Amino acid sequence: MTDSLTPRPEHKFSFGLWTVGWQGRDPFGDATRPALDPVETVNRLAELGAYGVTFHDDDLIPFGATDAERDHHVKRFRQALDATGLKVPAATTNLFTHPVFKDGAFTANDRDVRRYALRKTIRNVDLAVELGAKVYVAWGGREGAESGGAKDVRVALERMKEAFDLLSEYVLSQGYDLRFAVEPKPNEPRGDILLPTVGHALAFIEELAHPELVGVNPETGHEQMAGLNFAHGVAQALWHGKLFHIDLNGQTGVKYDQDLRFGAGNVRDAFWLVDLLETAGYEGPKVFDFKPPRTEDIDGVWASAAGNMRNYLMLKERAAAFRADPEVQEALRAARLDDLARPTLAAGESLADLLADRSAFEDFDPEAAGARGMAFERLDQLAMEHLLGAR
Amino acid sequence: MTDSLTPRPEHKFSFGLWTVGWQGRDPFGDATRPALDPVETVNRLAELGAYGVTFHDDDLIPFGATDAERDHHVKRFRQALDATGLKVPAATTNLFTHPVFKDGAFTANDRDVRRYALRKTIRNVDLAVELGAKVYVAWGGREGAESGGAKDVRVALERMKEAFDLLSEYVLSQGYDLRFAVEPKPNEPRGDILLPTVGHALAFIEELAHPELVGVNPETGHEQMAGLNFAHGVAQALWHGKLFHIDLNGQTGVKYDQDLRFGAGNVRDAFWLVDLLETAGYEGPKVFDFKPPRTEDIDGVWASAAGNMRNYLMLKERAAAFRADPEVQEALRAARLDDLARPTLAAGESLADLLADRSAFEDFDPEAAGARGMAFERLDQLAMEHLLGAR
Amino acid sequence: MTDSLTPRPEHKFSFGLWTVGWQGRDPFGDATRPALDPVETVNRLAELGAYGVTFHDDDLIPFGATDAERDHHVKRFRQALDATGLKVPAATTNLFTHPVFKDGAFTANDRDVRRYALRKTIRNVDLAVELGAKVYVAWGGREGAESGGAKDVRVALERMKEAFDLLSEYVLSQGYDLRFAVEPKPNEPRGDILLPTVGHALAFIEELAHPELVGVNPETGHEQMAGLNFAHGVAQALWHGKLFHIDLNGQTGVKYDQDLRFGAGNVRDAFWLVDLLETAGYEGPKVFDFKPPRTEDIDGVWASAAGNMRNYLMLKERAAAFRADPEVQEALRAARLDDLARPTLAAGESLADLLADRSAFEDFDPEAAGARGMAFERLDQLAMEHLLGAR
Amino acid sequence: MTDSLTPRPEHKFSFGLWTVGWQGRDPFGDATRPALDPVETVNRLAELGAYGVTFHDDDLIPFGATDAERDHHVKRFRQALDATGLKVPAATTNLFTHPVFKDGAFTANDRDVRRYALRKTIRNVDLAVELGAKVYVAWGGREGAESGGAKDVRVALERMKEAFDLLSEYVLSQGYDLRFAVEPKPNEPRGDILLPTVGHALAFIEELAHPELVGVNPETGHEQMAGLNFAHGVAQALWHGKLFHIDLNGQTGVKYDQDLRFGAGNVRDAFWLVDLLETAGYEGPKVFDFKPPRTEDIDGVWASAAGNMRNYLMLKERAAAFRADPEVQEALRAARLDDLARPTLAAGESLADLLADRSAFEDFDPEAAGARGMAFERLDQLAMEHLLGAR
Repeated sequence: MTDSLTPRPEHKFSFGLWTVGWQGRDPFGDATRPALDPVETVNRLAELGAYGVTFHDDDLIPFGATDAERDHHVKRFRQALDATGLKVPAATTNLFTHPVFKDGAFTANDRDVRRYALRKTIRNVDLAVELGAKVYVAWGGREGAESGGAKDVRVALERMKEAFDLLSEYVLSQGYDLRFAVEPKPNEPRGDILLPTVGHALAFIEELAHPELVGVNPETGHEQMAGLNFAHGVAQALWHGKLFHIDLNGQTGVKYDQDLRFGAGNVRDAFWLVDLLETAGYEGPKVFDFKPPRTEDIDGVWASAAGNMRNYLMLKERAAAFRADPEVQEALRAARLDDLARPTLAAGESLADLLADRSAFEDFDPEAAGARGMAFERLDQLAMEHLLGAR
Repeated sequence: MTDSLTPRPEHKFSFGLWTVGWQGRDPFGDATRPALDPVETVNRLAELGAYGVTFHDDDLIPFGATDAERDHHVKRFRQALDATGLKVPAATTNLFTHPVFKDGAFTANDRDVRRYALRKTIRNVDLAVELGAKVYVAWGGREGAESGGAKDVRVALERMKEAFDLLSEYVLSQGYDLRFAVEPKPNEPRGDILLPTVGHALAFIEELAHPELVGVNPETGHEQMAGLNFAHGVAQALWHGKLFHIDLNGQTGVKYDQDLRFGAGNVRDAFWLVDLLETAGYEGPKVFDFKPPRTEDIDGVWASAAGNMRNYLMLKERAAAFRADPEVQEALRAARLDDLARPTLAAGESLADLLADRSAFEDFDPEAAGARGMAFERLDQLAMEHLLGAR
Repeated sequence: MTDSLTPRPEHKFSFGLWTVGWQGRDPFGDATRPALDPVETVNRLAELGAYGVTFHDDDLIPFGATDAERDHHVKRFRQALDATGLKVPAATTNLFTHPVFKDGAFTANDRDVRRYALRKTIRNVDLAVELGAKVYVAWGGREGAESGGAKDVRVALERMKEAFDLLSEYVLSQGYDLRFAVEPKPNEPRGDILLPTVGHALAFIEELAHPELVGVNPETGHEQMAGLNFAHGVAQALWHGKLFHIDLNGQTGVKYDQDLRFGAGNVRDAFWLVDLLETAGYEGPKVFDFKPPRTEDIDGVWASAAGNMRNYLMLKERAAAFRADPEVQEALRAARLDDLARPTLAAGESLADLLADRSAFEDFDPEAAGARGMAFERLDQLAMEHLLGAR
Repeated sequence: MTDSLTPRPEHKFSFGLWTVGWQGRDPFGDATRPALDPVETVNRLAELGAYGVTFHDDDLIPFGATDAERDHHVKRFRQALDATGLKVPAATTNLFTHPVFKDGAFTANDRDVRRYALRKTIRNVDLAVELGAKVYVAWGGREGAESGGAKDVRVALERMKEAFDLLSEYVLSQGYDLRFAVEPKPNEPRGDILLPTVGHALAFIEELAHPELVGVNPETGHEQMAGLNFAHGVAQALWHGKLFHIDLNGQTGVKYDQDLRFGAGNVRDAFWLVDLLETAGYEGPKVFDFKPPRTEDIDGVWASAAGNMRNYLMLKERAAAFRADPEVQEALRAARLDDLARPTLAAGESLADLLADRSAFEDFDPEAAGARGMAFERLDQLAMEHLLGAR
């Protein structure tokens, strides 16, 4: 257990109040744990070495609280933050728990619900900024449908755009230094959710009035619920310059949303994800959006929370050793990753030059080229051995 | 069997040469049917009432053919087209069968393979335009990886962009009236394919030098292999103005790529898809990208081909009856689809007005709003009864 | 809307109290509907034409009720049954909602929990028999694990066997005319559940002390959550003589447990399932184990409930018309279903005869046999047209 | 690279001829590698430290070979076996490649195909026994259907039973020391395959005339294609005493059949599987039924082959260290695995005693029991750290 596995604030690990605070209520069962005081959460997270804490409005201030109650909750929370040094890098709105959002929020068929959802969001944006958040996450978990006639998707996307345009206008009008991060999910709790993957969200953003203010918040399990490669999705988000925030957890394939701790589930994908984040120089918060299994008592909750960070750090060590290993570097060359990095046109080469290059087509020998081995298995075996700490 | 179920060219049904021409070779079995002459295919498709035929270069002209052989094949094909009136609304490149493409084409690690792939594509673009195609489909089935170290996804996307930028430059330089349609797929034959869903492709397009020249070609089964709602994905593509082409077939959920005939598999999703295409006024080709099961002989192939068109026309009738039914119209209002169509801000209303509107938040009663039923089940039951021809 | 679509008790449709009574609490949201009085449920189901009602102990008698409260609830329920004529064909135990069952019931690691679960079950078996039930359903939704070390599966199966052996002993000792039906599910609420499919449950039963007392209760969505063909699984259960009970609902593929109304989701599979149940002469209860979506108010609940039965009856009509259609009968022969029905050995033929039959191997022409088309596409197209009411 | 990671015959690692011999033909691409001579395969496997080699009849003897050709192929193979000491622990029949099997073999609708399939199987059973095999694997990859009317599943299961009963009769009549192992798979190459999971196969076996002669051959990827936990399925097979053979490989979730090398894909499930096989004392062959990706040349093929064995041995070391770690042992006790191992009834306790035990129900405190944490997260984190070689 080297010191390099001890979480410290500079690792930028963050947790949602709703994660360790999850009481274990699931579709088939009642709560197995008592509620957790946000102040207690802040204190424990700080002790464990976290950098930040994030929240939905209703995690901190019960839905329907009076202004006085609200102030009380915020004050206690802020005091805990001040005392511990824990940051609030991001916040978000609960637009899914209350029955009013049963058909969505920004795309609810009912216009008054859409207006209410915007106001509820804006109210918490103010608080988020006050607490120092730079990112505001938007998970539209109820924006969707179970049946084909219930939602006109083109119209609903228009309403979704309207919402983000208004939120952007608000942030600009207030001079806030805040950006939005859309969190995609394919389904659950709706049969099909709008903007189901990182790709759909990235595309949507380009239609907005202020695309520069909006990025994505990919979540491990959400992409894996669609059978997608999480590291690939995050890489595409990075390529678009849109990885504003990231939610890490564990999932064992295409099934219900498991929210296991990071590292559980597909640990190989977790390895490549950490490798990507570290080599890409991602500097945003790394949020563990997990649910400690409802089999656990409060000790298990904190053990599970700590496991997220420890797994990240172990994988970071493994990935760094992989990249530093001369045999790996040679294997990467054997697999021609360096050739992938070379543009397809040479420096100064034009399309006309390519068309005139007989070596590119007329004199190219596809049989010989097709016979070249890619040497990927050796490379992947080296990765496996680094993952298992066997090198 | 009313006349409305008889396919006619104005329905714009099209087939790939590779669909009815599939010989039944699969990962575990040899061909069960002899090769089909493209001329025979053109004749039979025309008899069945199809509008068009589409092809990969290698479907028409065997890989490695001499120029003379090439001319011979093209001439025969063109004669058949002329004789039957069948159109070539689109074409595409085979960048996946030959071993040279085993690691991809536009994103192959090997630069010479990338150059060859571009040249092969451009060559067939010329032929496509010559034959009247307006859309050029690009399915990057081998652009991907089985293991994490084998592909640097950010770099590969850069290479993919380079390819589409060069192809666009070529089309513009030639003055061609041709647009590209990217066809996404999540996996198979690669473990993970780049641009795995309609969303990822739509996002990618926005980074191109000429986004206006590039749209998407969604395929039923490819989206459903990721557990996604196909009609939703197509609706988002339409919303972006990017539905340049569509491939229709059948799939029974998250598993290997089945390419069943359209209507087989998820017939409810097929109903909503037809409803969408018809109400959105999509006017491009409707291509059946299916594989007649290898259990079938040639009679079964044509029966299967005909089934695609007949199922589309039956579903079109069902969808039209659904939309015309006064009870459905009332059920749509009860489900407040009309309210979804109203912008969230009133005409002339500003963000400041919304913030000042106490009825939107302070005086809004979420309990009462949450108690309103959405009446979606009645609407969906009406859809079911129309689908089953019971109304 | 012919009379044949009106549900009547002889159709043997049954509902769980927990289905229409579901209040809409899901992993991300609070209840959207008030609790439903079981007496009200009985009255409404009877009006709608149902045959029966089924329940978990805790649906009828709140967990922890005193004996007096219990008697009161049972009495009211029985009066409603008597007044309406509704039957209780089956009942079951809630071994999953209370935190005590968070690690399972019959296979909980904690022995005292296992003992408690058995006692709770036996108590409700008595009530079930008293109310006339002939089948006792056992869904072991919490019997499983999220992580590999948490459960020794071989040992857990031994505990599961112990439980069913004790329950069987109890039923025999009391002279009850009651059989058990194990309900499999692959996952949710546990990461992996023991006896995940109909197959695993059928195999398990054979190891019991009294296999004749135990069969299966397949549920549409549970099999489809594993990507399995529900009608195939039910057919295998019938083949084993083990279809003691069946739960019908809707699911749209491999994802979270949706519990849509029957017919929603995969309607083609629903068609084949109804075809199977009707042609196999299944005479047990057909239970709709669905959840009216939480978007619905109470009117939507009853509309959804009615839809289940109506969809079954519509599909029953479609399936009967399919089987009666002379073209279908001819297509079935063309697809050689009659040849499948002939034993592979002729009457009186021995293995030695087969080995000596040169026509079976030495003189058999696999090329010719391989060239025969199976004519499945034509058959399936006829099924599609019957499903869509187009014939 | 300690010596413990060097494969040796006593590890009982075996390979199919078709695995390293796969030429890379997939649904979308041609072969990328030349054919491999079985003799070369035997020599290389022996050098790599394998114990055995297994084969389909057609892997060794081309379909349709004359008797003289057959003898020649068998003789060369046997000489290679003798020279290297490699064993043939198992063999199997190819009942899927040739078009004659396009609708299955033992359950083909065509009776003459069924008879031919039995004869083809029996012929190879003779050879298998001659070469020393003790297990005969039966993968019914084509026994299934793409459409609902094409196969009467109950009738097909009857035909399947007839086949296994005849094969058992043959083996008994010959006095062979050979048992059968049914290999389940949910789909691909058929839309749905009969006996789709380990569970379905185990249940089927109980209906046979000689169930003692038939067990299962679970394959990693096949169970994971249904989203099932492979280690759980193997544990159930062991519990039934039916693990006659095992096929190991890698798969990344619910998608097409990937056949990656063992350890690739879900490495955590691989860890638990190795832990299970080693603690259960499984002594049969461990067969790597993988396909070296078609990106690889022949060097990559052998690197991939070696990786399977090395990964097994690394995971075996990790699992042994996990079990030996005192902290793990304490964590297992904290998670009450020892309590799961205790029968639910005490020694000598009767059902009546349980019913009379007030501590089991009347005086049991479910709230207190429900509040106990299961301590699974700590245990799983220890497993993770052992897997990653961090302890």
